[in-house]
Amino acid sequence: MTDATITRRGRPRDSSIDDRVLAATRRVLVDEGYAATTIPRIADSAGVHASAIYRRWSSRVELIHDAAYGDLAPRRVRPTGDLRRDLERFLRAYVGALESPIVRAAMPALLSFEARDRERQPSALLHISLRPQFRDVIAAAPNGVVDPRIDLDDVFDLLLGAALARVAIPPGVRRRAPLARTVDLLLRALAPPS
Amino acid sequence: MTDATITRRGRPRDSSIDDRVLAATRRVLVDEGYAATTIPRIADSAGVHASAIYRRWSSRVELIHDAAYGDLAPRRVRPTGDLRRDLERFLRAYVGALESPIVRAAMPALLSFEARDRERQPSALLHISLRPQFRDVIAAAPNGVVDPRIDLDDVFDLLLGAALARVAIPPGVRRRAPLARTVDLLLRALAPPS
Repeated sequence: MTDATITRRGRPRDSSIDDRVLAATRRVLVDEGYAATTIPRIADSAGVHASAIYRRWSSRVELIHDAAYGDLAPRRVRPTGDLRRDLERFLRAYVGALESPIVRAAMPALLSFEARDRERQPSALLHISLRPQFRDVIAAAPNGVVDPRIDLDDVFDLLLGAALARVAIPPGVRRRAPLARTVDLLLRALAPPS
Repeated sequence: MTDATITRRGRPRDSSIDDRVLAATRRVLVDEGYAATTIPRIADSAGVHASAIYRRWSSRVELIHDAAYGDLAPRRVRPTGDLRRDLERFLRAYVGALESPIVRAAMPALLSFEARDRERQPSALLHISLRPQFRDVIAAAPNGVVDPRIDLDDVFDLLLGAALARVAIPPGVRRRAPLARTVDLLLRALAPPS
């Protein structure tokens, strides 16, 4: 296998180049913005040839994905069983992850606003999706607080939308209600009817 | 006043140029995408000099705003008093407005993902915000269906997030639950507690 790699590429792949390119991508994203984060600009900032980048990533968007979301480990919120408190910590961690300068700057690569984007299936939101963690938070709630018939994926989608809107919509246009108010509504939606 | 205008600009402003530029902006946005929608490209497509555009709009983003959102009259949903039905029609109209190809393509100009965006205060979301219409829908509901103590702006924000997530997140990554399921959750959040 190693032989084949050497034959194909002439020499073993230098993983320090990967790291330099990823770091440069993050730097350019934050300092110069998404539009400016082109492969030539990244190559220049990383001090590598653009061809070294093209050999490693199939597109600019894929590189931006890896740079911005590759290391974004979902922050683990360990449930306490106090659903209001746990949901608020959970939503805060989610918004915090989306609000990091790198993730914000890379957001256009994550979302799909152009017809052609619809065809690609970015895995990035899966990295930052905290759906399983959300289920853990709900599972820790005492009996009687959550209607067992409710579809938790529906509730998670509502929470995801609230987190995204908070990050995406400029302040001033939308009121910036404290997260606790969103949590209030989610608790009401989750509660069993009378 | 007219004299001053003539003195300043040399000749009266030709409003047909405005229309041609706006139409060209919409065309380029939809056909070529946001990144390609630059002032030189728009000028070329409209058959005008770029300087004519710079005289009329202070920036590319402002022009894209005007082109994409200027005519987007909020679709009026006349409430029937059946809250479930009215909320579903309302949410459907909202998502429909956000999903139009022009609005989708212009979305990066509307949302704020870069630090410097935070300083500008785009008015575009105000054009497509249907907050007053939402209040009308709620006001038409029969007594006892909506908890009078609930903050309707909080509920609207939740609905806005759900609509935005639906448009922004590529299908496949997120489940595409029918709008009716989001409406179910909103109704539960709105209902008076037991």
